[in-house]
Amino acid sequence: MPGNTFCQFFRLTTWGESHGIAIGGVVDGVPPGLSLTAECIQTDLNRRRPGNHALTSPRVEKDEIEILSGVFEGKTLGTPIAFMVRNQDHHSKDYDALKSVYRPGHGDYAYQQKYGHRDYRGGGRASARETIARVVGGTIGKVVLKSLFGKDIKIRAAITQIGPLKINPDHWDWDEVSQNAFSCPDKDMALQWEKYLTDIKEQGKSAGALIEIYATGFPAGLGEPVFDKLNADLAKGLMSINAVKAVEIGDGFASVSAESSYDEMVMKDDTPHFLTNHAGGILAGISTGQPIICKIAVKPTSSIPQLRQTITTDHAETTLSVTGRHDPCVAIRAVPIAEAMVSLVLSDHALRWRGQCGTFGEIRK
Amino acid sequence: MPGNTFCQFFRLTTWGESHGIAIGGVVDGVPPGLSLTAECIQTDLNRRRPGNHALTSPRVEKDEIEILSGVFEGKTLGTPIAFMVRNQDHHSKDYDALKSVYRPGHGDYAYQQKYGHRDYRGGGRASARETIARVVGGTIGKVVLKSLFGKDIKIRAAITQIGPLKINPDHWDWDEVSQNAFSCPDKDMALQWEKYLTDIKEQGKSAGALIEIYATGFPAGLGEPVFDKLNADLAKGLMSINAVKAVEIGDGFASVSAESSYDEMVMKDDTPHFLTNHAGGILAGISTGQPIICKIAVKPTSSIPQLRQTITTDHAETTLSVTGRHDPCVAIRAVPIAEAMVSLVLSDHALRWRGQCGTFGEIRK
Amino acid sequence: MPGNTFCQFFRLTTWGESHGIAIGGVVDGVPPGLSLTAECIQTDLNRRRPGNHALTSPRVEKDEIEILSGVFEGKTLGTPIAFMVRNQDHHSKDYDALKSVYRPGHGDYAYQQKYGHRDYRGGGRASARETIARVVGGTIGKVVLKSLFGKDIKIRAAITQIGPLKINPDHWDWDEVSQNAFSCPDKDMALQWEKYLTDIKEQGKSAGALIEIYATGFPAGLGEPVFDKLNADLAKGLMSINAVKAVEIGDGFASVSAESSYDEMVMKDDTPHFLTNHAGGILAGISTGQPIICKIAVKPTSSIPQLRQTITTDHAETTLSVTGRHDPCVAIRAVPIAEAMVSLVLSDHALRWRGQCGTFGEIRK
Amino acid sequence: MPGNTFCQFFRLTTWGESHGIAIGGVVDGVPPGLSLTAECIQTDLNRRRPGNHALTSPRVEKDEIEILSGVFEGKTLGTPIAFMVRNQDHHSKDYDALKSVYRPGHGDYAYQQKYGHRDYRGGGRASARETIARVVGGTIGKVVLKSLFGKDIKIRAAITQIGPLKINPDHWDWDEVSQNAFSCPDKDMALQWEKYLTDIKEQGKSAGALIEIYATGFPAGLGEPVFDKLNADLAKGLMSINAVKAVEIGDGFASVSAESSYDEMVMKDDTPHFLTNHAGGILAGISTGQPIICKIAVKPTSSIPQLRQTITTDHAETTLSVTGRHDPCVAIRAVPIAEAMVSLVLSDHALRWRGQCGTFGEIRK
Repeated sequence: MPGNTFCQFFRLTTWGESHGIAIGGVVDGVPPGLSLTAECIQTDLNRRRPGNHALTSPRVEKDEIEILSGVFEGKTLGTPIAFMVRNQDHHSKDYDALKSVYRPGHGDYAYQQKYGHRDYRGGGRASARETIARVVGGTIGKVVLKSLFGKDIKIRAAITQIGPLKINPDHWDWDEVSQNAFSCPDKDMALQWEKYLTDIKEQGKSAGALIEIYATGFPAGLGEPVFDKLNADLAKGLMSINAVKAVEIGDGFASVSAESSYDEMVMKDDTPHFLTNHAGGILAGISTGQPIICKIAVKPTSSIPQLRQTITTDHAETTLSVTGRHDPCVAIRAVPIAEAMVSLVLSDHALRWRGQCGTFGEIRK
Repeated sequence: MPGNTFCQFFRLTTWGESHGIAIGGVVDGVPPGLSLTAECIQTDLNRRRPGNHALTSPRVEKDEIEILSGVFEGKTLGTPIAFMVRNQDHHSKDYDALKSVYRPGHGDYAYQQKYGHRDYRGGGRASARETIARVVGGTIGKVVLKSLFGKDIKIRAAITQIGPLKINPDHWDWDEVSQNAFSCPDKDMALQWEKYLTDIKEQGKSAGALIEIYATGFPAGLGEPVFDKLNADLAKGLMSINAVKAVEIGDGFASVSAESSYDEMVMKDDTPHFLTNHAGGILAGISTGQPIICKIAVKPTSSIPQLRQTITTDHAETTLSVTGRHDPCVAIRAVPIAEAMVSLVLSDHALRWRGQCGTFGEIRK
Repeated sequence: MPGNTFCQFFRLTTWGESHGIAIGGVVDGVPPGLSLTAECIQTDLNRRRPGNHALTSPRVEKDEIEILSGVFEGKTLGTPIAFMVRNQDHHSKDYDALKSVYRPGHGDYAYQQKYGHRDYRGGGRASARETIARVVGGTIGKVVLKSLFGKDIKIRAAITQIGPLKINPDHWDWDEVSQNAFSCPDKDMALQWEKYLTDIKEQGKSAGALIEIYATGFPAGLGEPVFDKLNADLAKGLMSINAVKAVEIGDGFASVSAESSYDEMVMKDDTPHFLTNHAGGILAGISTGQPIICKIAVKPTSSIPQLRQTITTDHAETTLSVTGRHDPCVAIRAVPIAEAMVSLVLSDHALRWRGQCGTFGEIRK
Repeated sequence: MPGNTFCQFFRLTTWGESHGIAIGGVVDGVPPGLSLTAECIQTDLNRRRPGNHALTSPRVEKDEIEILSGVFEGKTLGTPIAFMVRNQDHHSKDYDALKSVYRPGHGDYAYQQKYGHRDYRGGGRASARETIARVVGGTIGKVVLKSLFGKDIKIRAAITQIGPLKINPDHWDWDEVSQNAFSCPDKDMALQWEKYLTDIKEQGKSAGALIEIYATGFPAGLGEPVFDKLNADLAKGLMSINAVKAVEIGDGFASVSAESSYDEMVMKDDTPHFLTNHAGGILAGISTGQPIICKIAVKPTSSIPQLRQTITTDHAETTLSVTGRHDPCVAIRAVPIAEAMVSLVLSDHALRWRGQCGTFGEIRK
């Protein structure tokens, strides 16, 4: 059963191996008549591109998006939007050494066990390069969401911890996020991270990170009982990002040691109002109209120069040091991908809601 | 788009409101010829039943499973297995007071915004009572998994923290889990929790908890690239359980402050062997053959006597104290449900793997 | 992969074997707030019930519908509507003789090859009794369609040929359809059929029939490119009815010998108007606003007293005469089922259209 | 809800407009390790290409397939196979005249009503050019089916009637089908059709046709109860082909006037054997091991020079004569497409069967 399709009503299918001809995807279910250009997608795509900074992988790809269908005279047709990005910087020879060895922390061994055959070049299908297609889908999702809920909706992510170094939440400044290479909302912390990651990189190691995603401006009512809860679909989408090992909604693990007292309600300006947002904007799987808040843990990059034990495909023991271009912290490039996954989930649920209920997005008594 | 169906190939659809006629479901995609009886399902079902202990909700339900189809002469037919459990202890009148008020921490407000109409009796569809159907599905899943991978596979969950009180991992004893009311693998901690929860209950409050789930004996190869990763589907399934606010796979959030060094491999007894299991048994979305390890955070019960602010359906401010039967810690009853969700996901992926690849479950060079 | 679910957005899952405990289903994706009662479903259900006439199978079942969930205070909740009908008239002993023989024209042999295990009693899952659940789903679909497109939409079916005896289309009178036991729109032909079928029955044989279905009052715009064309989904739904061997849309097979000239358009009362309806109301897979017209061929009943050659489950040759209650023409009971399948497909496409496009059902320039 | 994906387990998604950049698709769920080359796909693709004969549309396209992913070192990876064919012969200016007029018999009006926006160039998404992607999917399907059931399975289609001219079934010669431009199994009839179509074309008209598809060598057991019956999925797939108006399985409409007597069974060479094949190889939705036989009616080409009445997008009456390149009988190019749809359905059901039942394809007692 194919696993390369995400969401149901607003549906993204992706394809492509890291060192194949191209990476691409198809978004089906897009409402007709929406303005869409390759340029607006390219802008988001450039944010995830490696090579933006000394501390991200210097694979030099232009990552130029080509829209192949579904848009006519600048507007979506309602038919599938296909797109692709050619792989230019193959360097497949670099990977010959990895043909017969399983890299620790990667899917090499698991893929071989599943399929008995794998594209060993740069992780093949398991490469983070596949996430290009997610960013494209997420950008299309944002166009849909703005058409439904207005220009003021926002889906934004930031890194709030790298290794042991957490930002001070009081210093949070969204404007800062695009001003540094780490999507850090705390200017000073960005400088500390730069130093920390340079150190880590020199040691041939890598660091994990925490990403927080905030979706604001969305109405109460998004999400489905009982399996396709908004939080459940967000958890799936976010957990499906390479290297993600944990997902929290709202208070997340802090709920374990909490003692009741959950998000009381009052009226404010004649509108229902929650006094707190422990729930992260979702109750019983359905949005409450508050900010939707998710946090994800990204593990340290698995491809590192540090020498490690592993085995060959012939089951002989060996050691491996992965040299060449690689990021000391993959989370940096995961920020726009996390936003994209949230965008996809919200778009899907928004259209599902409209389909089933007709009227949506307004406060009902 | 319906959200009441889980998994794709081995598929559970559930239905029913807390105070409707019954709770039930349909499992489709079950392999034919497997021995299945209502009795083996009933055993699992009894574990989640309220009323097993002073500290769990005393709603007295026999929760008797009735298998309505799909089994003939004691064996599965390959056609849908439908089942239901009648709701006997309705007490709908208890809920009249809640008709026009939104309970904090519950889905009342969100459901009203989504549908404009809701069954206010005991949470209706959002009630934890719906999870009966999940446990049934999970039990059928275990029968499937044993037929595929042998009797030794295990899916087991335990509570390892309630409120601030964590177990000592060194005291972990799986045999203990079924011996106390809290699915606690640490005998001494179970006693402390009893005291703690009694206290909490007397104060009209409630506590959160941490549940850990271990699936062992499964081969490398389960899970799909790139969206239906095993970890992604586990995250969705676990996050869809009522009151769950976070999911970790393997090291989870501890990955944030880790510095590289990921699960090195050696040969042991002529078999590939991992030196550690930071990944929680899943790499690139596919199982590695190691134990699959998930942790989930369950928030404190939302229905508590503690007086809280809220609003009515007519948008007037009010206060609410939820009296009557309720658990101080919902996580206790969530233990078999967490196992069930893992069982469903693994069954689905096992059959998908067999369908696509034919041969499966053996170590390949 | 489960095959017991029909449609995607407005989704019916059915379950149950002919001689199991019950037949039932779940409809998910129903819009909230629609008035629905067991009574209105029962009325449709009674039309398909055997035992209404000497020439339909005298299995005496009350076929009482029980709605188990999804309706509260007389209105749909938006959550799954589960329902079932108990099997009362089992007579399982009648079927012991069939345990070890494959009935010609039935699925016995095919089921055995697929599953290696089957419920031999009355065809088990392959019994026409399963269609009870389709009729229920179709009735709920009609409630949805009326809420979307107004009370004047109609989905009506009639039998227009039994064996060699065709009605005269000039005598077509819809009011007549409910006045005779054969859903025949031509009063005189109904009398001829009665005589013909009585004859056929006496000879221990059975007859095929042609059913025509008309859906009127629906707007242009229903259906999806390119696989989920409205005609494609109608073909699937109708072909999935037991004993159906062919489906036509509009001119159907007459198109083979036609020479171009297809449904020209003019303006009439300021509205686009088609001069003919060769297309049966569907062009390029999308409805045109004209009547949607389908025809289906139903094969003669396979269970007949006539002696026929067959084999046993042990692969010995034998002969078989199926005695007991059986219809000489199964098409008679298939009329409400055909209507139900069309209702389900239209409901599904209507909600999908609303979800994707928001505005729908009005003529656009 | 997207309608551009076909089948569930072995799944084809297609995209592209007639005069956009390209036509393409993604096949997901392909088993790993199968030999696949662009060349073997190209061969099938060339069969459907226009411009092969004076009587098929002279649009000159090389239709060169580019495989973009999913194949590595000549073998399938198990990950999605993406492919595309560039549109070279756009001639978009030819279509400017059609911008503001609805062509009779085409989807122009229906698309406009659905989406309020359409690509008027050559039918956009509704163009038969989309079927390129189906042929590719079908070819991959055949590779899968051969790997499962052996090299001797065959899926073959032929045209058996054009306009009023039917072949003589006694003259049926499969070898002849590839020897004439009409996929005609009767050499003499092919000559008559040539004359007939030349005539029709000169009159500015077009002709319908009947296509018969035979799938042989497949075991009993393919297909699912109760909605995803093999015949139901075949009906959907075949009816989704442009211009198809009817589908028959086995005897089809001839069943209406039949009098019972259905496919009796005997033993032959120690194997179950059917004396006839009225059912077309499918009983109760599941294959019986006999040849699977489908027939489809294709309507006459809608784009013809013959002057016809129609309306403009501004709702003014007008007349239209479609000049330029067009086929007098679209069915000719539909032959490989019909084969492809059958191949896709059989592949999907084969893998689903293997997933659910494990053992498959052998005769069971």
